[in-house]
Amino acid sequence: MEKIAVIGGGSWGSSIAILLANNGYRISLRDISFEQVTEINEEKTNIDYLPGVEFPENITATTDIKEAVKDASVVIVVVPSHAIRNVAQELSGLLLDDTIIVSATKGIEEETYYRMSEVLKDELRPALHENIAVISGPSHAEEVSKGIPTTTVVASKSRRLAENIQDIFMSDVFRVYTNPDIVGVELGGALKNIIAISAGISDGLGYGDNTKAALITRGLTEIKRLGVAVGADPMTFAGLSGTGDLVVTCASQHSRNRRLGVKIGNGRSLDEALSEMKMVAEGVRTTKAAYLLAKEIGVEVPIITKAYEVLFEGKHPQQGVNELMVRGKKHEIEEVVKNKENW
Amino acid sequence: MEKIAVIGGGSWGSSIAILLANNGYRISLRDISFEQVTEINEEKTNIDYLPGVEFPENITATTDIKEAVKDASVVIVVVPSHAIRNVAQELSGLLLDDTIIVSATKGIEEETYYRMSEVLKDELRPALHENIAVISGPSHAEEVSKGIPTTTVVASKSRRLAENIQDIFMSDVFRVYTNPDIVGVELGGALKNIIAISAGISDGLGYGDNTKAALITRGLTEIKRLGVAVGADPMTFAGLSGTGDLVVTCASQHSRNRRLGVKIGNGRSLDEALSEMKMVAEGVRTTKAAYLLAKEIGVEVPIITKAYEVLFEGKHPQQGVNELMVRGKKHEIEEVVKNKENW
Repeated sequence: MEKIAVIGGGSWGSSIAILLANNGYRISLRDISFEQVTEINEEKTNIDYLPGVEFPENITATTDIKEAVKDASVVIVVVPSHAIRNVAQELSGLLLDDTIIVSATKGIEEETYYRMSEVLKDELRPALHENIAVISGPSHAEEVSKGIPTTTVVASKSRRLAENIQDIFMSDVFRVYTNPDIVGVELGGALKNIIAISAGISDGLGYGDNTKAALITRGLTEIKRLGVAVGADPMTFAGLSGTGDLVVTCASQHSRNRRLGVKIGNGRSLDEALSEMKMVAEGVRTTKAAYLLAKEIGVEVPIITKAYEVLFEGKHPQQGVNELMVRGKKHEIEEVVKNKENW
Repeated sequence: MEKIAVIGGGSWGSSIAILLANNGYRISLRDISFEQVTEINEEKTNIDYLPGVEFPENITATTDIKEAVKDASVVIVVVPSHAIRNVAQELSGLLLDDTIIVSATKGIEEETYYRMSEVLKDELRPALHENIAVISGPSHAEEVSKGIPTTTVVASKSRRLAENIQDIFMSDVFRVYTNPDIVGVELGGALKNIIAISAGISDGLGYGDNTKAALITRGLTEIKRLGVAVGADPMTFAGLSGTGDLVVTCASQHSRNRRLGVKIGNGRSLDEALSEMKMVAEGVRTTKAAYLLAKEIGVEVPIITKAYEVLFEGKHPQQGVNELMVRGKKHEIEEVVKNKENW
């Protein structure tokens, strides 16, 4: 049985472990919490992160990263975005030259604006750089762990590598597409969390589905604008890691970022809202990074700007929405206007 | 006070009437139901279609189309798609040459595959053809009538006309964008109903947010493919009439098309499901038209095909979903692969 290491035993790491175990792989799941590792090994559960789900026999948990990756042909990194640099430092000396590394973490590093695969490249030794891929898409962990039909996308510079990972993950309830645009796939997954917070704020203010649809659609326009400015293919944002992930995150009860937004819309400050939450809301860090990046490179991002002002500068959320509604009159999509001559 | 006629007093027509009345226009709202017209005029309500909403004083309802359009500078058509041809026949002789005609109806004519603006053109006298525009987007009537922040898009061949209508509709809770791509704007609004039925079926089967996000994203890919084949700009489908309307319809409790799908997912036949519903589910007609059109012009639309098979050929919904999940492995977006050389 081929061995795969999953680094990070939160809800998404655990779900990936279960999916791949069901696909017939021997899984070593590494987490830093001794209690959690013990629970997974002895009780076959991870009650804090995936209540009600039983782990298959072919998953073994460990706190030891060296033990986790030993003889593993594939290493999947699923730690919070702020932890990925340290993990990559640890991994660099441990992996064989042909080990495949898949990032399933969504986020942007705050200080560097690096995508997760860029952080991996920054820390892993050069021999491993061609082996890096990412997986992203509308895949709530809770649902994947229960076998609910899900689709995702794998991106890598190498088509062979992307198709190899597609084969490993694909099952009759987990459909995987491939995409060469690693920049677009990673940015979609990271930036969508900003819009999810905004959608939560709108819900918390008591606004409706129309408002949320506006935030999703116009938010996607901003994500695309920012993404294209840093090298992404605009079409990728119409795909699973863009539109798909954005939709599921903004609509879902499961999303931490949306829930954080609801608290803010209800009148909490960012600190109050964060202190009430157990899991990490990646979108807070991402909002700051994306706002500063857009400012630096001169890309117009009105929704991201309002989210930043509400989260970090104490702007009242309702004021933020009002300012978005009454801006100057616009054409919807400048490219479409350009495509029509003499309009 | 400038007069605007709204033809069709269902929930969307009534909401448009209220919105424009609040913007300061004198509204003549035409409906064929004498009871409904009387209720609107005497009680200032339309309890069957917009419960809990009060109509402003500057709306007058009538069953007489001639009276409704007399002296109106703008006529907004908001009847079900199967009724628009007859309405256009009636309107053709009644309107002055400079009357603006806006279609707010979403759908495709079953026999001709015509978009609503094409049906209008087919029946209105040539002098009026340049005055036709459409409005579409994520705008549930119930929310618009209550002043919840909403965004939409107006499309017309003439930029001046589109901007004129933008001015008429825009308010501090109703933001309007313009777009020259009338084909794309109309098709987005019509075809999204097929995916809404599919999303409802998925919900009715007990599947999750991941499944729905997959249907939305891959459904949008099909809508775009079909739209481009008949002359739409692909970028329009990333906008409010594409992504935006699709998202709101698939997520919302208000959507009739989604509710119809839920009934089918629960095991009802199409006839049983339809007989339990009061309002029109446009998506049923649209599914048939889109399926036949795609077949005729040779465009691959797997989700639309499964929806057709489930609705009209008695395929079991779960079987339909399974067939979608286990198709051959694919690249996500062929254009992105083409953009990357040597991938």
